[in-house]
Amino acid sequence: MERVYNFSAGPGVLPLAVLEQARDEMVVYKDSGMSVMEMSHRSKPYMAIIAQAESLLRELLAIPDNYAVLLLQGGASLQFSMLPMNLLTHPTQQSVDYILTGSWAEKAYGEAKKQCGDVRVAASSKAVNYSRIPTQAELTLNPQAAYLHITSNNTIFGTEYYYTPDSGGVPLVADISSNVLSRPMEISDYALLYAGAQKNLGPSGVTVVIVRKDLLGRRTDLPNMLDYKVHADNDSMFNTPPTYAIYILGLVLQWTKNQGGVAAMEQRNIRKAAKLYAAIDRSSYYQCPTEAISRSRMNVPFTLADPSQDATFLAEAKKAGLVTLAGHRSVGGMRASLYNAMPEEGVDALVTFMAEFERRHG
Amino acid sequence: MERVYNFSAGPGVLPLAVLEQARDEMVVYKDSGMSVMEMSHRSKPYMAIIAQAESLLRELLAIPDNYAVLLLQGGASLQFSMLPMNLLTHPTQQSVDYILTGSWAEKAYGEAKKQCGDVRVAASSKAVNYSRIPTQAELTLNPQAAYLHITSNNTIFGTEYYYTPDSGGVPLVADISSNVLSRPMEISDYALLYAGAQKNLGPSGVTVVIVRKDLLGRRTDLPNMLDYKVHADNDSMFNTPPTYAIYILGLVLQWTKNQGGVAAMEQRNIRKAAKLYAAIDRSSYYQCPTEAISRSRMNVPFTLADPSQDATFLAEAKKAGLVTLAGHRSVGGMRASLYNAMPEEGVDALVTFMAEFERRHG
Repeated sequence: MERVYNFSAGPGVLPLAVLEQARDEMVVYKDSGMSVMEMSHRSKPYMAIIAQAESLLRELLAIPDNYAVLLLQGGASLQFSMLPMNLLTHPTQQSVDYILTGSWAEKAYGEAKKQCGDVRVAASSKAVNYSRIPTQAELTLNPQAAYLHITSNNTIFGTEYYYTPDSGGVPLVADISSNVLSRPMEISDYALLYAGAQKNLGPSGVTVVIVRKDLLGRRTDLPNMLDYKVHADNDSMFNTPPTYAIYILGLVLQWTKNQGGVAAMEQRNIRKAAKLYAAIDRSSYYQCPTEAISRSRMNVPFTLADPSQDATFLAEAKKAGLVTLAGHRSVGGMRASLYNAMPEEGVDALVTFMAEFERRHG
Repeated sequence: MERVYNFSAGPGVLPLAVLEQARDEMVVYKDSGMSVMEMSHRSKPYMAIIAQAESLLRELLAIPDNYAVLLLQGGASLQFSMLPMNLLTHPTQQSVDYILTGSWAEKAYGEAKKQCGDVRVAASSKAVNYSRIPTQAELTLNPQAAYLHITSNNTIFGTEYYYTPDSGGVPLVADISSNVLSRPMEISDYALLYAGAQKNLGPSGVTVVIVRKDLLGRRTDLPNMLDYKVHADNDSMFNTPPTYAIYILGLVLQWTKNQGGVAAMEQRNIRKAAKLYAAIDRSSYYQCPTEAISRSRMNVPFTLADPSQDATFLAEAKKAGLVTLAGHRSVGGMRASLYNAMPEEGVDALVTFMAEFERRHG
């Protein structure tokens, strides 16, 4: 079986070189005599693997020394709760701000409401079906907020922030699950960032949290597993970490570095996204629901002029080796995710297929 | 590099056949055109993988239909908190019972105290350095307790329950992380069982929870990610599950079934443990700190008559291809873990090495 071009929104495509290395090292890793999966997390070879993963992450994202890097479990979904649990000292008296830009932002907001008595909506683009990111001018910020939360890229609606909100001194927090490593970011603009790995970082099952160290330890009554400080104090080894997922994360980070790092990734992602949006925009058969200024480079939703042809489109695309193109079940249509590991050839193949499909069915 | 015999307490040895299949399927899984790691968790091939894992677990452990099987993240350590969060409806007014048999039981107890105002010790063998499991006669049970918690096998101190405590109708809860699948269990004796995967089930990063369905939904204010009912209602797909770890879990379960299931595993584990304990007991050079009646088949701690030879023992064992034999950092000495995937030949090799070491250094 040949490999296909996999446009999944996540878990998504991984670099072929990473999978080949993982295959070659599966039964015996280097001179350890065992698989990475079988290693005690406190063994020397494994300690080197996890240290290397953190080191590469710090290098690629230029993470300052006053930030802790945590490798946790539970995905962004658990961070939706851990964030307010850890950052609020008086949950019933404090207020937090959320900018709503799609389903995941809404979920983060919903979980915050379970932890905090006053969760404000600082802005929302729901009225325009989340087709763009609110502008700085549209934000209604509470200068007393304990933090301002944003979702830097929205996988379902296909929008992305191209500016960093000025929070007026309020700690800025971002869910960067779906565009981390896709372009340079100024980490020091943020108090905390978090990302599930299963888009640009690696497999599902490991979650990266980057948190300014002065924010740790505000609460002392949390379950150990939900306390950032406990994980920071134990170098993400408080309990057995998801060892194999972290190993793959390290391989993906090394691959990213070999490609030229996040600056090179950004240039490639700009080219890939530009090709696909251009193909959509030059046709009356395809439409993109998002406004140009906020269009995500990672997730490109589009619709056919005749939705009754959706199933045919997906079936013929699959025959052409282009898979996982169905839009999220909540919005329908199509969605092509163009994460770092999606080669330009994959986008070219999709664009060619779309033109041919339109010629035959349009 | 040859494979070694890996006596790690976890993450630990996996069946070679599982690793070879994982290797062969790493780049392309069957006719999917992609790695399992790259699959959308809602894709057809992945849905088949997770359904098969649950089905095999139900078959191997004979789990009744009135129990939900959840595949979660966070290890047993997160269950220490999720358990009281989910089972207590009035945490400040209810009482729970814990039997203390070692470090992990103590940790479970410690986390429960953060969630419940009245956490009782129903029994403890701490006074004898956790060298045995308390007997039924030694239990001081509270008939009003919301549940009674036990740790079915103790990896650090090397003890294991060979009876099921009669809780007098109080829901019985067990951390079965380190002996699940090692022998048949009567699931209906328990209200809830949980296990981190990284001993007999698979890689770290996935946690199995088996819970009687009538216990779900007692609380409605929990974070979604910490609510058993949310995960049960969504077939462990509320959020992106640790997809690759679950795939490996499925392979390990299939291997376990191919070996004859848990009854066959028990026979093999009895033979393996008997060989090693006999080797220790017939020598005055080796000592086992645990009492015979509670000796674990999974984790066998032992000491040398002369502790100054510990480092030599470990170094020479490593040269003989026998690794990860150091005792837990909290107790020292040696520990050989004999999980399901440790072949009898590994135990034979260890026993032979121990006799030779004693001859040369004893």
